[in-house]
Amino acid sequence: MTTTVNQIATMRRILQKEGRQKSLGLVPTMGSLHEGHLSLIEQAAQECDRVVVSVFVNPLQFGPGEDLDRYPRDLERDVRLAEEAGADWVFAPRVEEMYPSGIRTTVQVSRLTERLCGAHRPGHFDGVATVVSKLFHIIQPDKAYFGLKDAQQVAVIRQMVDDLNFPVQVIPCPTVREEDGLAMSSRNLYLSPKERKLAAVIPQALDDATREREAGRLKTPQEAIKRIRDHMETIPELVIEYVDVLSYPELEPVPSIENRSVIAAVAVRLGHTRLIDNRIWSKEGRR
Amino acid sequence: MTTTVNQIATMRRILQKEGRQKSLGLVPTMGSLHEGHLSLIEQAAQECDRVVVSVFVNPLQFGPGEDLDRYPRDLERDVRLAEEAGADWVFAPRVEEMYPSGIRTTVQVSRLTERLCGAHRPGHFDGVATVVSKLFHIIQPDKAYFGLKDAQQVAVIRQMVDDLNFPVQVIPCPTVREEDGLAMSSRNLYLSPKERKLAAVIPQALDDATREREAGRLKTPQEAIKRIRDHMETIPELVIEYVDVLSYPELEPVPSIENRSVIAAVAVRLGHTRLIDNRIWSKEGRR
Repeated sequence: MTTTVNQIATMRRILQKEGRQKSLGLVPTMGSLHEGHLSLIEQAAQECDRVVVSVFVNPLQFGPGEDLDRYPRDLERDVRLAEEAGADWVFAPRVEEMYPSGIRTTVQVSRLTERLCGAHRPGHFDGVATVVSKLFHIIQPDKAYFGLKDAQQVAVIRQMVDDLNFPVQVIPCPTVREEDGLAMSSRNLYLSPKERKLAAVIPQALDDATREREAGRLKTPQEAIKRIRDHMETIPELVIEYVDVLSYPELEPVPSIENRSVIAAVAVRLGHTRLIDNRIWSKEGRR
Repeated sequence: MTTTVNQIATMRRILQKEGRQKSLGLVPTMGSLHEGHLSLIEQAAQECDRVVVSVFVNPLQFGPGEDLDRYPRDLERDVRLAEEAGADWVFAPRVEEMYPSGIRTTVQVSRLTERLCGAHRPGHFDGVATVVSKLFHIIQPDKAYFGLKDAQQVAVIRQMVDDLNFPVQVIPCPTVREEDGLAMSSRNLYLSPKERKLAAVIPQALDDATREREAGRLKTPQEAIKRIRDHMETIPELVIEYVDVLSYPELEPVPSIENRSVIAAVAVRLGHTRLIDNRIWSKEGRR
């Protein structure tokens, strides 16, 4: 039976009673759970004795004009799904519980927050790093699970954990996709039926570039970026925010995409909806 | 017997073996231990089953042109003194152990770092907050002990602990003083015999203002600041960096110093040496 907890002090008390003998997994989410989240919860339940799923739409990581207010919320459904996937507790604090008198302390990660989404959403990753720090301190998990759909977020959190010596193991988990390849995202709910159909071009463009790289026909970031752009530009409704290819997880520009681990990452707008996706091309991927 | 530990992984392993049943105190220092530090260690040893004293001269909290290179270091003596005061371990990592590849993540506390020493040492408190975060994550203490000579540091760390929900109790401890009232500080070692003698005017000026406030003759920050300044300016060798009176622990300007908790804080230079001191005037102090 999954218990929903709203108060930090209550959450601490429950976990303290559990003791430190049992291993604890944390799956931080903003709710509106989909199969991507559920795969994280299932993996956490397999690897840890106890699992906390946090559900918190963190205002600190939304910029002005972003979708904080219309971000989908349905806690009752989230709790049911989290329970089915193996969560022991859903930690769902209110904003006033997490930020009782605003916040004067922020955790900032430099360099790898300056590119991709970081360049287009100023302050976003400070908000992410800060709330994840809070959750790590409240829950004190042994392992924390993050989806690679947000690959830059995974890189930022791993950097933060390394730099600040958080006693937490960060587990990156593969992106879960719809049948047509679209990455699962709570924001897919915003799409009209027509937009939803068009969105399939995003994974198609990335898959195509992945095949081209594996065949040795893409050698530089510029070639890969052009290939992905050209493919996506066949859909005029789709507005490209960025397409970039960088080293992963450092997120630095590289002269070549051969024999190194790189990420091909895109952000686009379809109507009012912002969608992101990526492929991580491993060093060995280029045969 | 006190054990000296240089590696983060070793420190973690030792503390893990101790288990979470025993309470753990941390006294973070930059070494060059004096009676002020020893009083912190003694209090920690009284209140906790186990005590770690960290000795780390943190480059991140020194600005360009500050005394990082000449800061006094004598680990052998520190370990001996820490042992006598009741420490179980001295954690003394090298800079390369704490910052193996520089650092991209910083913890920043806004507002109350903008005044007093924060205004005169840009980046100083980011460096303090960041290294204390690291130490908290490595040691995972139940309680951490800080001296009130650095009252702004105590306020910054309490704010950080509150904002980021660190599972640590911050224990502020009274300033320990030399016979003539000078606050104990590792930097007192820098003073020439003549400067050392002149330095007594700092606590004298603060004591005098404390008495004046208690007698009801100082009602505003301006009056208190002038009283302290006038007193210290009787010593021409002493260069005042700041004298300020603010609310404590918020460190905000206040219209009156009656019926509220305020801090009178000073920073001065004597020759090449920077010295700080303060008095916290409690709400009840004004009779």
